[in-house]
Amino acid sequence: MPYVNIKVTKENGGLTKEEKESLVKGATSLLQETLGKNPASTVVIIDEIDTDNYGLGGELITERRKRGQ
Amino acid sequence: MPYVNIKVTKENGGLTKEEKESLVKGATSLLQETLGKNPASTVVIIDEIDTDNYGLGGELITERRKRGQ
Amino acid sequence: MPYVNIKVTKENGGLTKEEKESLVKGATSLLQETLGKNPASTVVIIDEIDTDNYGLGGELITERRKRGQ
Amino acid sequence: MPYVNIKVTKENGGLTKEEKESLVKGATSLLQETLGKNPASTVVIIDEIDTDNYGLGGELITERRKRGQ
Amino acid sequence: MPYVNIKVTKENGGLTKEEKESLVKGATSLLQETLGKNPASTVVIIDEIDTDNYGLGGELITERRKRGQ
Amino acid sequence: MPYVNIKVTKENGGLTKEEKESLVKGATSLLQETLGKNPASTVVIIDEIDTDNYGLGGELITERRKRGQ
Repeated sequence: MPYVNIKVTKENGGLTKEEKESLVKGATSLLQETLGKNPASTVVIIDEIDTDNYGLGGELITERRKRGQ
Repeated sequence: MPYVNIKVTKENGGLTKEEKESLVKGATSLLQETLGKNPASTVVIIDEIDTDNYGLGGELITERRKRGQ
Repeated sequence: MPYVNIKVTKENGGLTKEEKESLVKGATSLLQETLGKNPASTVVIIDEIDTDNYGLGGELITERRKRGQ
Repeated sequence: MPYVNIKVTKENGGLTKEEKESLVKGATSLLQETLGKNPASTVVIIDEIDTDNYGLGGELITERRKRGQ
Repeated sequence: MPYVNIKVTKENGGLTKEEKESLVKGATSLLQETLGKNPASTVVIIDEIDTDNYGLGGELITERRKRGQ
Repeated sequence: MPYVNIKVTKENGGLTKEEKESLVKGATSLLQETLGKNPASTVVIIDEIDTDNYGLGGELITERRKRGQ
């Protein structure tokens, strides 16, 4: 019953379904392989955050992207 | 001032306003009855998560729903 | 597979095991009765927060408690 | 590498980009000035929550707003 | 700058430092390989939760463990 | 009723009460000045995370500190 929450910026229309599947599969395997946790009850929630709502270094990711960062 | 966060999948157009009111009312009562917490300052936040962004058992809820789970 | 997180201040030695059981049982029932969610996969996590780490109204709960609030 | 999460209700179309920039800048400065934390690795995430999904005092913010609260 | 939060129960004295390193390394690689995210700014926070504070199926993990689950 | 969560590493015995008060006061003021939010219902929760449970760049903060980072 581990719980994993992944927060990433939503860019270029957001993650594809395949990318989401890889994250869920990968995080579930990580918990199973590292700690022996039961995959059947492992919950993974992916939050895609608008670049205007995500800040790093005191500025919005939107602004960092404009500078190519 | 307790804080309650409820995360559920967003299905069939999402929760109705009545369902949200029941969740807020129910969670606030639970804290009051169990711990004597003041309802006036109890905060409840409901996050409705797309079934593509919610994983259980290493797969997306979207896929589980297709199999009738 | 709903996920519920309850944050309360840790006071007088913290919640008893019975109080925690009531919170888990109550939150799980709430999700089942309101939304028909499967109790078997409902996760509830209780965070007990030191009153020095919990603020309301711009001050620590520790200070509010001293004034009888 | 501090992490700050700010949750506010989404009202009147949501926060402006300027408001978001002020929140990110302000939270990052707060961590730097209070604790000497490196602004370059300070992450700030802003969640704008629908007033139907945010409860206080056992009712939805939507209802409180109707009464002018 | 992705953010990953992993919540697991604290059992048998808690995770070892090696297990924590594996979780941090594994989650960071997952984000890099799946989404091309920069590992340098990927934050991973591990919360170890007392089995008395973690509920599944309407009961505390503490009770489930007693039954060998 | 905004909610602010601040996560920082727990170092050198953890934050002092004065530092916690500054964070709570500062975050509450930020929300009031930027968005006109009512300080009376603003909640701030500070999580102090062990450096063994906080990862950046694929490694534990504990290891980064050993290298003077």
